[in-house]
Amino acid sequence: MILPESIQSLINSLERLPGIGPKSASRLAFFLLRAPDEVAQDLSMALANLKANTALCQECFNIMEAGRERCEICESQSRDSSLICVVEEALDVLALERTGGYQGKYHVLQGVLSPIEGIGPDDLKIKPLFERVGRGGVSEIILATNPSMEGDATALYLRQHLEPLGVRVTRLARGLPVGGDLEYADQNTLLRALSGRQEMG
Amino acid sequence: MILPESIQSLINSLERLPGIGPKSASRLAFFLLRAPDEVAQDLSMALANLKANTALCQECFNIMEAGRERCEICESQSRDSSLICVVEEALDVLALERTGGYQGKYHVLQGVLSPIEGIGPDDLKIKPLFERVGRGGVSEIILATNPSMEGDATALYLRQHLEPLGVRVTRLARGLPVGGDLEYADQNTLLRALSGRQEMG
Repeated sequence: MILPESIQSLINSLERLPGIGPKSASRLAFFLLRAPDEVAQDLSMALANLKANTALCQECFNIMEAGRERCEICESQSRDSSLICVVEEALDVLALERTGGYQGKYHVLQGVLSPIEGIGPDDLKIKPLFERVGRGGVSEIILATNPSMEGDATALYLRQHLEPLGVRVTRLARGLPVGGDLEYADQNTLLRALSGRQEMG
Repeated sequence: MILPESIQSLINSLERLPGIGPKSASRLAFFLLRAPDEVAQDLSMALANLKANTALCQECFNIMEAGRERCEICESQSRDSSLICVVEEALDVLALERTGGYQGKYHVLQGVLSPIEGIGPDDLKIKPLFERVGRGGVSEIILATNPSMEGDATALYLRQHLEPLGVRVTRLARGLPVGGDLEYADQNTLLRALSGRQEMG
């Protein structure tokens, strides 16, 4: 059976999204076909408006509403601007904000260093970070890039360039995930948890 | 952090899709934000055009291109019109067509009987099926509703009403899935596989 052109093109578009394979794509397409008209229409509108209405904060490069220069976090007076948490992408800011346990500012690199993919320091928002630190008032940089090979390499690169500027540089702790199960932890995580063991507080 | 309105509304729309939770929804939204403009635009267009360009075949109620009366399968001269395979939804037609092993026609019920959800025979394309059979020329009806409680109940209902019309009524075989593992099969499947055991051909 050849599917109607409009369904096939929806399936094709959905398949390009991460984590959605051919089967999920057709299931989603047929769900949208059966669902009330507004479900597909709302989604269509949201997609059409997505980029027009968003911009990057010119200070921390987090995503924000278009039409302003700095994001809410950068403009907030109640947050500690001597503390900058460096993350790979806007989603990481979201994750950290959800914890409710961080009251400093952020800096979103918009990626990680990756020689294989040809992504060097100039392709990321690294220079603006150095400039922020250079302007003074920053006492600590928390490197919160992912605990992956690229994330570690990026953190290392940043430490080498930030420490000479006289700022304290820290990295998020590694160890067993809370609620995790020791026997299912991978070797590296377990080694890190061992070497980073702490006195019980 | 409050997300920009346009991203939040995209996340909300995505969350309404089956199998997409809050985390996948935000991951997809941020992927679309980073991806080339045309990815979100293509998807937006495909969604907007979805319903306008599709219609139901007036014979078998499968989905088809708008602007014609009967679908390609119903109009095909090379397919056996004495054989009708009854399925729940258009996706099932797709799955059966992919096997390449069926050369008859279809009938798409557009759902299953479900007293709990208040779906009775009049809410499905059951009457048109009886009419198709009543017009003659049909020798066998293959009931291919899902092997679920509702699918079985629907099949039972159809059998009771189709057999008096003098047509052979069959149901798709149950048993162990090909490539499956006996020890992981659930009790009911195993019981069915036992009671439906066959001579080795």
